[in-house]
Amino acid sequence: MSTAYPQLEARYREAALIKTTQSMLGWDQETYLPAKAHPWRADQIAWLAGQQHRLTTGDEIGGWLAQATSEDLTPSQRTNVRGWQRDYALARELPNTLVEELTRTTAQATQIWAEARARSSFADFLPQLSKLVALAQEKADRLLPITGGTCRYDALLGEYEPGIRTAEVSAVFASFAPALAALLEPALARSATTPADALAGHYPVAAQQAFNREVATAIGFDFAAGRIDTTTHPFCTELGPYDVRQTTRYDEANFLSSLFGILHESGHGLYDQGLSKADWGLPAGEACSLGIHESQSRLWENHVGGSDAFWAHWYPRACHHFPHLKDVSAATIAAAARRVERSFIRVDADEVTYDLHIAVRFEIERDLMAGTLALADVPEAWNALFKKLTGLTVPDDAHGCLQDIHWSFAGFGYFPTYTLGNLNAAQLMAAARRAVPTLDDQLASGQYHTLLTWLRTNVHEKGRSLTAPELMTAATGQPTVAGPMLAYLEAKFC
Amino acid sequence: MSTAYPQLEARYREAALIKTTQSMLGWDQETYLPAKAHPWRADQIAWLAGQQHRLTTGDEIGGWLAQATSEDLTPSQRTNVRGWQRDYALARELPNTLVEELTRTTAQATQIWAEARARSSFADFLPQLSKLVALAQEKADRLLPITGGTCRYDALLGEYEPGIRTAEVSAVFASFAPALAALLEPALARSATTPADALAGHYPVAAQQAFNREVATAIGFDFAAGRIDTTTHPFCTELGPYDVRQTTRYDEANFLSSLFGILHESGHGLYDQGLSKADWGLPAGEACSLGIHESQSRLWENHVGGSDAFWAHWYPRACHHFPHLKDVSAATIAAAARRVERSFIRVDADEVTYDLHIAVRFEIERDLMAGTLALADVPEAWNALFKKLTGLTVPDDAHGCLQDIHWSFAGFGYFPTYTLGNLNAAQLMAAARRAVPTLDDQLASGQYHTLLTWLRTNVHEKGRSLTAPELMTAATGQPTVAGPMLAYLEAKFC
Repeated sequence: MSTAYPQLEARYREAALIKTTQSMLGWDQETYLPAKAHPWRADQIAWLAGQQHRLTTGDEIGGWLAQATSEDLTPSQRTNVRGWQRDYALARELPNTLVEELTRTTAQATQIWAEARARSSFADFLPQLSKLVALAQEKADRLLPITGGTCRYDALLGEYEPGIRTAEVSAVFASFAPALAALLEPALARSATTPADALAGHYPVAAQQAFNREVATAIGFDFAAGRIDTTTHPFCTELGPYDVRQTTRYDEANFLSSLFGILHESGHGLYDQGLSKADWGLPAGEACSLGIHESQSRLWENHVGGSDAFWAHWYPRACHHFPHLKDVSAATIAAAARRVERSFIRVDADEVTYDLHIAVRFEIERDLMAGTLALADVPEAWNALFKKLTGLTVPDDAHGCLQDIHWSFAGFGYFPTYTLGNLNAAQLMAAARRAVPTLDDQLASGQYHTLLTWLRTNVHEKGRSLTAPELMTAATGQPTVAGPMLAYLEAKFC
Repeated sequence: MSTAYPQLEARYREAALIKTTQSMLGWDQETYLPAKAHPWRADQIAWLAGQQHRLTTGDEIGGWLAQATSEDLTPSQRTNVRGWQRDYALARELPNTLVEELTRTTAQATQIWAEARARSSFADFLPQLSKLVALAQEKADRLLPITGGTCRYDALLGEYEPGIRTAEVSAVFASFAPALAALLEPALARSATTPADALAGHYPVAAQQAFNREVATAIGFDFAAGRIDTTTHPFCTELGPYDVRQTTRYDEANFLSSLFGILHESGHGLYDQGLSKADWGLPAGEACSLGIHESQSRLWENHVGGSDAFWAHWYPRACHHFPHLKDVSAATIAAAARRVERSFIRVDADEVTYDLHIAVRFEIERDLMAGTLALADVPEAWNALFKKLTGLTVPDDAHGCLQDIHWSFAGFGYFPTYTLGNLNAAQLMAAARRAVPTLDDQLASGQYHTLLTWLRTNVHEKGRSLTAPELMTAATGQPTVAGPMLAYLEAKFC
């Protein structure tokens, strides 16, 4: 009897080729695809998805997995087998009919949601949302035995964040959200000392691109194994072990928008570029979870890029690319980048208010999945929660419960990973500071290598060998908590 | 018994999805792929090629084809079945071992050729070339029963140009090459009246891109179903029924280089955009041959773009994008674009000398395949032929028999399609003029729609329903001949 492990590895390496080909077509769809070419592209992607599904759900895999557990394996190989067991179990649990129904419904729903948002009419989205909630509930019921947990939301959360339970997230928000709300007044007061138009001026796209590329290179993004292109919605995608592509958008009135976008996506990109090359495309060379991925983007964006030290160092280069910045100081740029404001729209929110937006979504999603909140009551519940946490009165659904695309693709359980990412970032940064006493001096002189190396060792190279709580505990001494984030926010904003 | 035709069509539509996915990855490889990402990309493309091969060589296809010939089919469906019969027979005739050996050898040979060319040493390329010639001969021996013909070169030519025989190409060159050589002196004399630096100046890339796009749009290239990007070696590729991508390169000292490049690639692109949408990816919606494809690029590049009428019309727009052109006249731009010069390098050659370069390559390839020319004698034979046709003495192999990449990918039989393209372009243009008496007035006022419509009807929409000689006969009254090309060159250059 031949050994099973090599057959599994060959199978999943082939699947990785197909998956990255799909990602390649998806990247092109967002960047360069001509307007009329979308239907053909959809057919190409569907064909690849079919091949991928066929390769990763076959009965033979179950046999190989059963056999491989008793084979003599290296630690990486054991990580791979554990990862495949989970992925295979999840994939097998979802019948084709449900997957197709979800694909069909979300394709329509995204369009209908966009129209409903334009009209600010939750009622127009309600029938679709009702279907999506029912489908997500069915999916959750099927996945729960695999993900583990005690309620539907555990299963949905577990897809994005293996090992995290709804009760844990509830506990985090129960202390974190009120503490955030308490920070808001002092942060607003300090922020008011910097005028909103402190950096007013014209920032040509080409100069922004040159500056962004310089910064991304300095923090360690490898342009021989990656790129930056332009899209409406920024993202970062992995197309191969040496092919990580990020995107951004440009506002010629505000260079900070694309720069922080690039710092954010470069954080994702550095994680992807730091995954094990030997196990690339296999669980030991895959990212741990969305909440860990987001911690990397937020760490580089906010903890590095949003610091006074960053601007003290980069000020001369910023002036080189945007000569009129000579009329303002490095400190003013840092202060402008730290602006806090109560606002209705999550994607525009600053660091102090951002997680309040997430707290609202989490409570509503959780209760929707549990069946304790009626769909028709979502706008009222949203507006009440938002008022309680931010003090603002939501004027209409477009500025409230209709603003995000996530529910239209049935992405229930996704939102909390944003907050987990923020908490993880602060916690990892604090741990890196403890481990490297000279870290702040290095960052102040534009030396990012030691920080990156610490992240490579403690996060990137772990792949999926640990769950997120295990990884956080190994790297920082405890699973995700709110303390380091609150200390960071207070020091930075108050 | 179910009908076979629908199964064939479904199979080949699936193959078209895979083929265009390969083309997509190939396009990205040339345009945007990061430097370190090439090995993974090669694996992705190899995987797709394997799927494509599996889908298009299975025994079941033979059975379907046999059955489909007796089914009740539309004309397009009959074209498809005939095309598949040929493609399937060709694919089945080549054993995997030969295909793999060709792939492996050409991969090495391209590198070795580039190095040999850099050292101008034919001897360094000789061992690889010897293998490639032997492999091409084996391939030709296998394909000859399918392509028809009486010699190996017939088989190789037949792959690119179904229905054309070596003897016919020999006959064309026998009269065409001496006639061209005779045109050279008067053309050089007339050309000498325009100074080489008549258009000297700086032409910023962004301005060239804006002007090129305006011109490409005017002749009918649909940018909602296509794009222009930048590459070292310009090309045009079809990624779907509404996705035709061309590329060019820019020389800021010479705007004509990218403009004529765009006119050339747009000619290919208009053909691709004009193929039947209903049969797209099937033989009835595929291009007829390389020689017909090249006729479309050369027609728009030379017969439209290279005319006095074109520059009389576009002069104001050229001055808009490049203000210093106000100091020269439209006639001077046209004259500069018409410059003739004896030169050693094919890709730099003008219209009068270009086909002399091809004549040299054709004779040498034909005799190599027939075994009547020894490989070691190639440089001597090349130089003697080149001297005879152009009067120039080749200084070294880099300027002679080592200059082209084609032999390094075993592309024997490809070169003649360039000349067939030139002849077909002149012949089609003459026929269009006869069919549309007001054509020149329309072109002079920048109206290209009637010409494009004539080409759509007589060339693009024919797909592979006719062979190239049949198509030329249907469109112009006779198969490819040299007369119209000679008349055109004499009128334009002498």
